[in-house]
Amino acid sequence: MQKFNKKEYIESIKSLHSADQADSIESLPYEIQSSILRTNTKNFHPDFIAYLREETRDDILHMIPNKQLVNLIKYLDLDDAVEILGDFETKELVQILSKLGSQQRERIEESLQYDENSAGRLMNRDYLSIKSNLTVGELIDQLRNSRRGPKDFYNIFIVDDQNIPIGYIPSGRVLRSKRSKKLKDIIYKDIHIIKSDEKIEDIAYTFRQYGLVSAPVVNLDNKMIGIMTVDDVVEIDHEESEDDMRKLGGLFVNDFYKGAFTSATSRFIWLGLNLLTAILASLVIDIYSDQLQQMIAIAVLMPIVASMGGNAGTQAMTIYVRAIATKDINNSNYIKLVVKEFLIGSINGFALSLIMGLIAYYWFDSLVLAFAISFAILINLGFACLVGIIIPITINKMKIDPALASGIVLTTFTDVFGFLSFLSIATYILNL
Amino acid sequence: MQKFNKKEYIESIKSLHSADQADSIESLPYEIQSSILRTNTKNFHPDFIAYLREETRDDILHMIPNKQLVNLIKYLDLDDAVEILGDFETKELVQILSKLGSQQRERIEESLQYDENSAGRLMNRDYLSIKSNLTVGELIDQLRNSRRGPKDFYNIFIVDDQNIPIGYIPSGRVLRSKRSKKLKDIIYKDIHIIKSDEKIEDIAYTFRQYGLVSAPVVNLDNKMIGIMTVDDVVEIDHEESEDDMRKLGGLFVNDFYKGAFTSATSRFIWLGLNLLTAILASLVIDIYSDQLQQMIAIAVLMPIVASMGGNAGTQAMTIYVRAIATKDINNSNYIKLVVKEFLIGSINGFALSLIMGLIAYYWFDSLVLAFAISFAILINLGFACLVGIIIPITINKMKIDPALASGIVLTTFTDVFGFLSFLSIATYILNL
Repeated sequence: MQKFNKKEYIESIKSLHSADQADSIESLPYEIQSSILRTNTKNFHPDFIAYLREETRDDILHMIPNKQLVNLIKYLDLDDAVEILGDFETKELVQILSKLGSQQRERIEESLQYDENSAGRLMNRDYLSIKSNLTVGELIDQLRNSRRGPKDFYNIFIVDDQNIPIGYIPSGRVLRSKRSKKLKDIIYKDIHIIKSDEKIEDIAYTFRQYGLVSAPVVNLDNKMIGIMTVDDVVEIDHEESEDDMRKLGGLFVNDFYKGAFTSATSRFIWLGLNLLTAILASLVIDIYSDQLQQMIAIAVLMPIVASMGGNAGTQAMTIYVRAIATKDINNSNYIKLVVKEFLIGSINGFALSLIMGLIAYYWFDSLVLAFAISFAILINLGFACLVGIIIPITINKMKIDPALASGIVLTTFTDVFGFLSFLSIATYILNL
Repeated sequence: MQKFNKKEYIESIKSLHSADQADSIESLPYEIQSSILRTNTKNFHPDFIAYLREETRDDILHMIPNKQLVNLIKYLDLDDAVEILGDFETKELVQILSKLGSQQRERIEESLQYDENSAGRLMNRDYLSIKSNLTVGELIDQLRNSRRGPKDFYNIFIVDDQNIPIGYIPSGRVLRSKRSKKLKDIIYKDIHIIKSDEKIEDIAYTFRQYGLVSAPVVNLDNKMIGIMTVDDVVEIDHEESEDDMRKLGGLFVNDFYKGAFTSATSRFIWLGLNLLTAILASLVIDIYSDQLQQMIAIAVLMPIVASMGGNAGTQAMTIYVRAIATKDINNSNYIKLVVKEFLIGSINGFALSLIMGLIAYYWFDSLVLAFAISFAILINLGFACLVGIIIPITINKMKIDPALASGIVLTTFTDVFGFLSFLSIATYILNL
């Protein structure tokens, strides 16, 4: 490997966008990261730290000396600053806050009072809200002469006398209207309001569903206290999907940027749980060990039954874990969907049992064995599709994350039921 | 079930947002959908059809009589109209196009010349581009007096004399600037330009990475021909993630809204492939059937080895399928990551082999059997993590979708290798 040239590296990323600077730093080896970040943060855009991934942010922020970190945070938008400071321990947090200007500090403290994944925490408090009795000309004059509110913005929110949002006007629409036009004549009233305690998943759904660019956030009295913008939401929504995908694959965290040992540790928990499941299935097989010895063909075929059930169950589970996340399941369609899954399992179970029955018959030249595996596959597929929908919904009702827990519970069911059904049917009809 | 009241239903969804109307219609049973759509589309917002899911759109659009469909399409934005018409057969398409106004028709035809998932197809051709030599006042006057361009917009794109985009100004920023201010003094030059042949995955990445609200699309000569806006991209990005998640779960399409029989058919292909894999694994077991008969404990334990390998491989595969999608893997870090995976597999393999060795020893009271399963688990986990990274990357290089194909190839490897390694090790050291 050629020697790393720090100076050259910094020169090469200097002109990049902050998001790309963050990516580049994240992909460096640990030692080089820390050597660069200890002294060179002045060469980066201050908001590169806002673009760091959640998984690596903690490690990277702790490489930056506190004094430099404070200088970076001063330049951040409120939502970014809050996101970053939310990860710090109280002691460090207090230290950093004490070095910020009083206005920024107060705003950060206010936001930190809300739950980690709520609108109150994620929103920006720098926004424009206007009364609807103004004309376009008066609004423009006010914007030109006042320093209140953000420099750049996309929507202007209209509030009533109680500061309750009643509509919005895209700023482009203001630009296209004559000065004498009253705001109340160009207002859009189909406004989507976000409550300060609303959770990110729900906010992301609202933005996506209605194609929003920004939306007002209100407190418990419905008074406007901030806005959320689409760029934050895109990021959150993306992370949510990625999270679910990872969890379905048996990962608690995204370890792409972590070292081998840390990754191994975090993956071990899942594998340990799966070991228990696998042992449970083996215990079932063990019950039939005498019969297996009499007809070893059963041992040869038994993994097929369990594997088919596992796969069919995973298909169903994948559909419903996502349907829960996107709020497509409700009490009115639940029963209908369960019936549908049972039908799917039965149809595919029938087709696969025919195929496998024929194969087993030609392979082992035994009609009864062929019938046993056929029958086992048929009932296993019906069962697998049923538990594939029931498990995620039940787990979700228990307030456990269905993406995380469904897989392991499903495998336990399909493995145990798969071996048990085939072995019991086979030993029964073969009179073993 | 109580009888469905069509009139009441239409009344109840009349005032909903088009996106919610689309959701509501999608969740109805087939017969009711078709009975409502044949005659009542006038009661819906015309753009409800733009909000239909891809999976159901085709079915639903074909329930609407062509004449009504034309009336709905007339109200759609270009990008929505193009998306919908792109699904039609040539004959029907020509028929519908012939009934549209000439301006809309020409624009749709232009867009349809681009590839299905490219910016040229997805973009809107109604946008604002301005020369930078104007002042804020001149721009506002021009916007007020001209009908060119969209009614609502967020960014104003600045182009040079060749119509090449050189920057943008958020419309809010224009509102905050004095009339005498020159546009070239308030322009942002860090503009992200999209090529007309760029694919949606790449566009979504750009929007997310840089938090964009809209971006200009240029043709091969770098001249501006349209814009893409974040609401379309959020939707696309979301669908891409959902697609990958589904495919990893063994689903070719999202069958949530499909009937049981259609769902069963689409899931069958995957299960059929898995049946082949399972049979392959059974063939391996069959080779050792004599030895299994001599020591049935091997048959009892063998699913554990295959299952552990499968799970560890899936963890690795999940990470890298996503890393490929988000462009986090490149030639420079590929070898490093393969080494890391091998380490992870070895670390967890070592831990799990110790645990399982102890369990097997106490269970079957056989030190050699305990050693055999320990050793098999150790090499299986190393192997599983290795193929977990190599398979998706190799499949991706072969231009096959890694989310779709990785799972089945991985299971084949981990199953066959799992049974083969354990059975061969066990029969060798047990002298069977």
